[in-house]
Amino acid sequence: MSSIDVCFSPELLHLYDLKGKAVVAVDILRATSTMVTAFANGAADIIPVMQLDECLQYATQGCLTAAERDGVKAEGFDLGNSPFAYMNGHIKGRTIAITTTNGTRAIRMSEAAEEIIVGAFLNLQAVADHLIALGLDVIVVCAGWKGKFNLEDTLFAGALAAKLQDKFTFENDATLASLYLYQAAKADLVTFLRQSSHVQRLENLETNKDIAFCMKHDVYNTLPVWKKDRLVDLHAAPTLA
Amino acid sequence: MSSIDVCFSPELLHLYDLKGKAVVAVDILRATSTMVTAFANGAADIIPVMQLDECLQYATQGCLTAAERDGVKAEGFDLGNSPFAYMNGHIKGRTIAITTTNGTRAIRMSEAAEEIIVGAFLNLQAVADHLIALGLDVIVVCAGWKGKFNLEDTLFAGALAAKLQDKFTFENDATLASLYLYQAAKADLVTFLRQSSHVQRLENLETNKDIAFCMKHDVYNTLPVWKKDRLVDLHAAPTLA
Repeated sequence: MSSIDVCFSPELLHLYDLKGKAVVAVDILRATSTMVTAFANGAADIIPVMQLDECLQYATQGCLTAAERDGVKAEGFDLGNSPFAYMNGHIKGRTIAITTTNGTRAIRMSEAAEEIIVGAFLNLQAVADHLIALGLDVIVVCAGWKGKFNLEDTLFAGALAAKLQDKFTFENDATLASLYLYQAAKADLVTFLRQSSHVQRLENLETNKDIAFCMKHDVYNTLPVWKKDRLVDLHAAPTLA
Repeated sequence: MSSIDVCFSPELLHLYDLKGKAVVAVDILRATSTMVTAFANGAADIIPVMQLDECLQYATQGCLTAAERDGVKAEGFDLGNSPFAYMNGHIKGRTIAITTTNGTRAIRMSEAAEEIIVGAFLNLQAVADHLIALGLDVIVVCAGWKGKFNLEDTLFAGALAAKLQDKFTFENDATLASLYLYQAAKADLVTFLRQSSHVQRLENLETNKDIAFCMKHDVYNTLPVWKKDRLVDLHAAPTLA
């Protein structure tokens, strides 16, 4: 039986052996929710990068550029980190270079894994189905908040563990804690999260609508995975040559 | 109003500013539970050290030596890490040099703090009362398990947050998560913990009795604090000159 484990922060990732395993990278507010939304709205591929200037250079290659720092869109970029900015059809077929505070880091630091999948509540069932079919040991890598534990990524880990609990063993206390927290919170995730000072900071930036959207389960069937140097959607409709 | 925050692992401690704050170091299974028990049974002071050989050298200075590695007493030492080994009166008035896998590390890595207090369920109320009187911002430093998150230290953090919640603000998601987990678990901490693979490993070492004891609340009124190079009990009866 394969196992599921949870890493609460990229700062703890060196304690986990990723080799031969499937990583689910998660940054619910809002990087991975936004990436899932982008693919659902036709993005061709997504290049996550660590630095603002590196990201901006992709504009010269015909990419759209997206950046967020401390919760707001960075100056000079085409897109920020709100999923709603990716919904009006203008991203169809485009490559998006994106840098975010925590989410990009979780993805790029997981490159030793056999497979990296981008997870969000928005594509929870698609991720769970894929992991069951894949049969590898799973490590959920939470982006956290500036290296620290955060609730929303942990709640996603708990939601995924709930989906997988009949088919996977639980390796550690982090998975048990995530599952308990999700069970306590699932009746009303938004109200539960509103107690969090980190979420309160985001709310001050008028992202209430984003937060409510990012808590919705199974809105999309997209399955972003890491291929060589970028994310592609495994569930994308094949393009006609 | 002072704040309370929780650090789930010494591996995350660099993200926290300890200056001017009170640290509560916790390693429920079993280092800090054992230290609290040792003081309650008359230990004069406790010297936590990182390495086995450094610890053994204290024997030449008339100290008792105590060591545990991977859950069992290390060879050549007077004491292991079971609180029951500290109860038969032979430690009264003695200095104990102790090294443990995770707990010593949490204490020694917190030396930048204004005050370091050793916490366990066994002296929970004494720690809470002291923190309220002290009025400093509090960071609970969980020893964790080989750098990773563990449930039992988190449950202690939640129990302490429950005691302090009317008088302290909650700074971060880790404190909220700890409090929720404690509320879910407090009716039967032992059964709750038994799901943990880490606790199951300890149980294989026939430490069931230790685990049940370490979950008991407020058995002792001891208050171990760090003074210069060792732990002393602030609540110890004054010795007669």
